[in-house]
Amino acid sequence: MFDIIAFDADDTLWHNESLFTETKRKFSGILANYHSPEWIESRLDATEIRNLERYGYGIKSFTLSMIETAIELTEGRVTGAEIHQIIGFAWEMLKAPMRILDGVQETVARLAESCRLMVITKGDLFEQEAKVARSGLGDHFSHIEIVSEKNQRAYEAIVARHQVSPERFLMVGNSIKSDILPVLAMGGRAVYIPYETTWFHETVPDSELEQKEFVELRHIRLLPDLLDDLAAESGE
Amino acid sequence: MFDIIAFDADDTLWHNESLFTETKRKFSGILANYHSPEWIESRLDATEIRNLERYGYGIKSFTLSMIETAIELTEGRVTGAEIHQIIGFAWEMLKAPMRILDGVQETVARLAESCRLMVITKGDLFEQEAKVARSGLGDHFSHIEIVSEKNQRAYEAIVARHQVSPERFLMVGNSIKSDILPVLAMGGRAVYIPYETTWFHETVPDSELEQKEFVELRHIRLLPDLLDDLAAESGE
Repeated sequence: MFDIIAFDADDTLWHNESLFTETKRKFSGILANYHSPEWIESRLDATEIRNLERYGYGIKSFTLSMIETAIELTEGRVTGAEIHQIIGFAWEMLKAPMRILDGVQETVARLAESCRLMVITKGDLFEQEAKVARSGLGDHFSHIEIVSEKNQRAYEAIVARHQVSPERFLMVGNSIKSDILPVLAMGGRAVYIPYETTWFHETVPDSELEQKEFVELRHIRLLPDLLDDLAAESGE
Repeated sequence: MFDIIAFDADDTLWHNESLFTETKRKFSGILANYHSPEWIESRLDATEIRNLERYGYGIKSFTLSMIETAIELTEGRVTGAEIHQIIGFAWEMLKAPMRILDGVQETVARLAESCRLMVITKGDLFEQEAKVARSGLGDHFSHIEIVSEKNQRAYEAIVARHQVSPERFLMVGNSIKSDILPVLAMGGRAVYIPYETTWFHETVPDSELEQKEFVELRHIRLLPDLLDDLAAESGE
């Protein structure tokens, strides 16, 4: 009953947020002589948000945010060696092994047999392409769409480009803000599969969720059964 | 006679390399107490090349390369304040006014009346989208394609996606390596319009140009007449 089933990538197909969380902890360690971990992380979060408009998403943007925060919180006393350590964190993140989420491999392989699958991910083109390649999942997807922001306009452009009507487009992802609300707004369908943690930037107040029609699943393994149920309901 | 005429963006539609050249000069100024400008620039070039594989293209990547080079060339003695200055260069680059190349505005507007135009640019998705938007030229182009690398495969994917046969695809750009050779390799046509300077990474030895069939124009203003001539030759 869907012409395209599209998946978010980070924290839907593979672990991502946990990599940032670990790096933030290491970053706090470098500045431990100056401030408390809580204050360091809150300042880093503020720098990240400010820099999204300036740099966009991704590891390079995050690294520049760490460096800026280190300079700010040490009033310029951070050393070259410490900044070198921070850059080393970026290198580790960029080459960190892909950790595919439990159940993804078999679910995606199974759905690909009967439906056109797509990845729609926001972020840094270079970094996201590298992750898709390294995930080994690429062959299951007929298209990989990397966009700078997942808003209603971006989704409308994608369904138009692939000549699919919105109601036959299903998006699966872990972000209410990026994967669910804009897809519902254009008349598409959406399945929300929460990840273990949600980046503070992606949280949405409960009040915005009233009367929104989407399905929440605990696990991606439940997706094929949900699709069968939906097909049965619609009589397809 | 072409279904799509595609233009490279940086240094074909607007000045770009000059922005990097100016920033490299300012960067050398920061390290003037440590090394000669020539040595600083050659080390920065080496870091950039090494980092292309790690970070991809764009201003964020270049900024991380400047920071790494500063740490290396000062053996870690570069100060937080100096690194803050380097990050300030990145901010200036990201918001630098777009300088459209002479003749581009009118040529692109004229060609758009009779042909489907496209932009194909490599680099950072976020930065390139922002430049297209700020250029004010976006409306002349039916598609903007941002790719992580301009190789034969990338061009083949683009013509396939737009259902155009390669021989009816024309690419216009300032880089022999990225805009001309891979397009000829897939059977497309190409027009080379050199920019005032070429990034060392984009240079190609003369020996690789033997027996390659492409047209070189001094100025984008000459493009409409060239297209008329080609159409007359082919009898269209």
